[in-house]
Amino acid sequence: MASSTSSSLSCTKTIDPSYVAPKLLIIMVGLPARGKSYIVRKLARYLNWLQYESRVFNVGERRRVAAHIERSGEKPVEKCLYPRPFSSSAAFFDPTNPDLVSVRERIALETLEELLDWLSGQESSSVGILDATNSTLKRRQTLLSHIRRKAGTLNEVLLIESCCFDQEILERNFRLKLNGPDYRNQDPDEALKDFRQRVVFYEKSYVPLGEAEEQDKIPYLQTIDVGRKTNTHLIQGFLSTQVVEYMLNFNLSERQIWIFCGGESMDDSVGKIGRRSDLTEDGQRYAASLVSFIHKERERWEQDMQSHRLQNHDSTKLRVSDPAQKEHTLGSQTGKDSPSLLNFCIWTSTMPQAIQTASGFCEERYVKSQMKTLDDLNAGDMAGLTFEEIATLQPAVYAARKQYKLQYRWPGLGGECYLDVIHRLRPIILELERRKDHMLLITHRAVVRVLLSYFLDLRRDDLAEMVIPKNWGFSLEPVSYGIRFGAYSYRPESGTFHLEPNAQSMFFLS
Amino acid sequence: MASSTSSSLSCTKTIDPSYVAPKLLIIMVGLPARGKSYIVRKLARYLNWLQYESRVFNVGERRRVAAHIERSGEKPVEKCLYPRPFSSSAAFFDPTNPDLVSVRERIALETLEELLDWLSGQESSSVGILDATNSTLKRRQTLLSHIRRKAGTLNEVLLIESCCFDQEILERNFRLKLNGPDYRNQDPDEALKDFRQRVVFYEKSYVPLGEAEEQDKIPYLQTIDVGRKTNTHLIQGFLSTQVVEYMLNFNLSERQIWIFCGGESMDDSVGKIGRRSDLTEDGQRYAASLVSFIHKERERWEQDMQSHRLQNHDSTKLRVSDPAQKEHTLGSQTGKDSPSLLNFCIWTSTMPQAIQTASGFCEERYVKSQMKTLDDLNAGDMAGLTFEEIATLQPAVYAARKQYKLQYRWPGLGGECYLDVIHRLRPIILELERRKDHMLLITHRAVVRVLLSYFLDLRRDDLAEMVIPKNWGFSLEPVSYGIRFGAYSYRPESGTFHLEPNAQSMFFLS
Repeated sequence: MASSTSSSLSCTKTIDPSYVAPKLLIIMVGLPARGKSYIVRKLARYLNWLQYESRVFNVGERRRVAAHIERSGEKPVEKCLYPRPFSSSAAFFDPTNPDLVSVRERIALETLEELLDWLSGQESSSVGILDATNSTLKRRQTLLSHIRRKAGTLNEVLLIESCCFDQEILERNFRLKLNGPDYRNQDPDEALKDFRQRVVFYEKSYVPLGEAEEQDKIPYLQTIDVGRKTNTHLIQGFLSTQVVEYMLNFNLSERQIWIFCGGESMDDSVGKIGRRSDLTEDGQRYAASLVSFIHKERERWEQDMQSHRLQNHDSTKLRVSDPAQKEHTLGSQTGKDSPSLLNFCIWTSTMPQAIQTASGFCEERYVKSQMKTLDDLNAGDMAGLTFEEIATLQPAVYAARKQYKLQYRWPGLGGECYLDVIHRLRPIILELERRKDHMLLITHRAVVRVLLSYFLDLRRDDLAEMVIPKNWGFSLEPVSYGIRFGAYSYRPESGTFHLEPNAQSMFFLS
Repeated sequence: MASSTSSSLSCTKTIDPSYVAPKLLIIMVGLPARGKSYIVRKLARYLNWLQYESRVFNVGERRRVAAHIERSGEKPVEKCLYPRPFSSSAAFFDPTNPDLVSVRERIALETLEELLDWLSGQESSSVGILDATNSTLKRRQTLLSHIRRKAGTLNEVLLIESCCFDQEILERNFRLKLNGPDYRNQDPDEALKDFRQRVVFYEKSYVPLGEAEEQDKIPYLQTIDVGRKTNTHLIQGFLSTQVVEYMLNFNLSERQIWIFCGGESMDDSVGKIGRRSDLTEDGQRYAASLVSFIHKERERWEQDMQSHRLQNHDSTKLRVSDPAQKEHTLGSQTGKDSPSLLNFCIWTSTMPQAIQTASGFCEERYVKSQMKTLDDLNAGDMAGLTFEEIATLQPAVYAARKQYKLQYRWPGLGGECYLDVIHRLRPIILELERRKDHMLLITHRAVVRVLLSYFLDLRRDDLAEMVIPKNWGFSLEPVSYGIRFGAYSYRPESGTFHLEPNAQSMFFLS
């Protein structure tokens, strides 16, 4: 199915109406509060970014809707089954009550139906994810036999189970549930008590993935304590392989990820695109300012971490219990156990303006490397022209590019489209997810667009249209349940960078 | 450590004398005849191809040398311990004989010493692989504490265990052992009996990877029945992640992999390099001949398979017991269980001469896709010139390229070196390893060099110098314990391709 990747990532095929996306159905498995929804959101974001249209179908939401929990903008899809808040209370999950068991099963099957309709109904749909506990053998077998009957064009199924034996991670997840839709605005102690009871009910009939699935030759991935252990079975399909590869690179360690464009180049200053070009004097001033800005931010972060650890022992424990911090068990002790001693890596493209922008960072404190993968979108024969020149000299090229910005490949040797850039940046994203170091990427506007569209979960069309104001930079801090985003503007007069409080609305386009 | 990849793959760093390769020590684990040496050879080939210098240190060989088994060109490294063939007979592996236990332990430690000297002694050395059973907890703990004491610049350790519960695969492996150095030229029945006794001795004290390693936080990968199941623990380092990614894509299914250049282009006919250019009339004739050649070869292969299956039930069973054939358990039944119904995929670059060379293959029988990843090595500003023109117009460029062909990047936008091409072809190699379809790649000479250097395990310098005669193509059939290689020359007069019987010597350069 690599053909499908490549084709979905090459313009010829993307605009080919006969193109049918490869199909994968993911069924989540796991007791409550095992981070299933976190995994699911992240996975969908990655696959959508790779242009495999992915959608999450959450059984819990359907249950709440089915039971008339008012949720703004949503209408109940069927008549009231049980008065609120019963459908959210532990009692609703009592496995000894056959009525409730069958209600829950029906809700699960209805959600699966919805997923299958979407997955086989549309040529562009690629990955459907069923987000539910599915923690009993019977439930999984019901779902699978249902799928066997109506698989349609589906050609891959993958079960993903998240297990957690780390009590500290579990406790944190439990408390996060109290802010969730089932318990919001309820007495915390009561809510926690009720939620624990729900988990007890689940545990009674819980069967982890294993023998039964191996008997039936069902592909599965089992992740234990956020990637400490990963067990896979019969992973062969292209999309499943992509999913496993991605999940092997998960880590929860706290760190800074910075993404900046290089300073202004000679070509930038006259609007010429795509060539290798040196920094202007303004560009050099910007580069100098960037060094002192990043230096300060790094120190601020380390101080915050220190005080955070003093205030909050839990978080320290959490960090220590995080396999992220256990790297290099043997051999050179890089003191990774203390997050204040994180390495700081700077990756630039191989183009002069990026390399020169990084030149001020000292090798002692920053690990620098150049990567061709971070080079600017290749403008082929248009490199060295301004957009105005392209419009007048090559009106057809200009128009085609304007119409299909995402999949239009510039003509000429090495010319790329945005989809080509996504394709070549995949290993960079996997590396950013795997590493526990601070990172600064100094690259080019088109590449920054593609990187941000991954972190901010933007849709196709938003990507190519995203406005990146000149000399802005971005911070992306992984935090539990998502990413803390910051946009910083540059003030040439003072040579300083300033957080833009309202940037969110600018960038969270979808 | 991605910096290390990228840097090891960017010319600036490759020729930087201060460059120190990332270090990984792999310790193999597993009972005899579990395919350890197969895995080890393949892994080393992949890592060497990625330019991480890798070397296998085999304890069995040292045992044989230590015990004076004559092996041409090798001198015994120490005085005779035990007369031949005792050191190869089952009795030598008796765990109840403390003398023999300590001899075997000393041989293992000496081999580890040799590995550590090589790994920390040289800046360029990257991955050392200790190929032995290491099937007892005590042995592994001895090795690890020894490593802890002398780790040096080592910063990653990975245990890899190969388990096999599939009786048919096991039986086949047992029989393959009879051709191995310990049993060659002995009575097969006696030899098999002796080898089974050796395995029994090992099984007595065998402890698979698991709890103990998890207690000690040792990263491991456990592969069961050739990739049917894969269990990983604490995989975090860059090289370990590369290894796991590669091993997740193993499969043993029999199929054809063909690699050809596109037919002669207008530019080829006048010796100009690197541009997009259409086929000449000769090129078009070549393309037409290629279609009928591949068509015939595909049918021949399928007939051979048929008769092979009729003759030899074992091999059929083997094929069926191979998870490779279990793809698409659910959903569309593509009849993959019968190897005679394999898909045939054609991947071309996005350059006209490759696309035009594939144009004669009908969409009904061949799945075609275009991949930018297969484009020719980008000659940057030199594209469109002949080598003679480069030599006269750009003598400095010509000389630098000649001297550092592997890591010299052509100047100008998008210009590449061979290391860049290796880097971008990595996903293609992983896909070729994962798929069970027949494959035909139609690409360009530099890309063919890089692909062949992977399959034929060529060393750095051989790669760039490899001679690819005009209009030759290559077949690479995965077979147990390696690859069946064929080179085919094209006869324009008859429009036919012919197997070159002596090509091996041409290409197995190292």
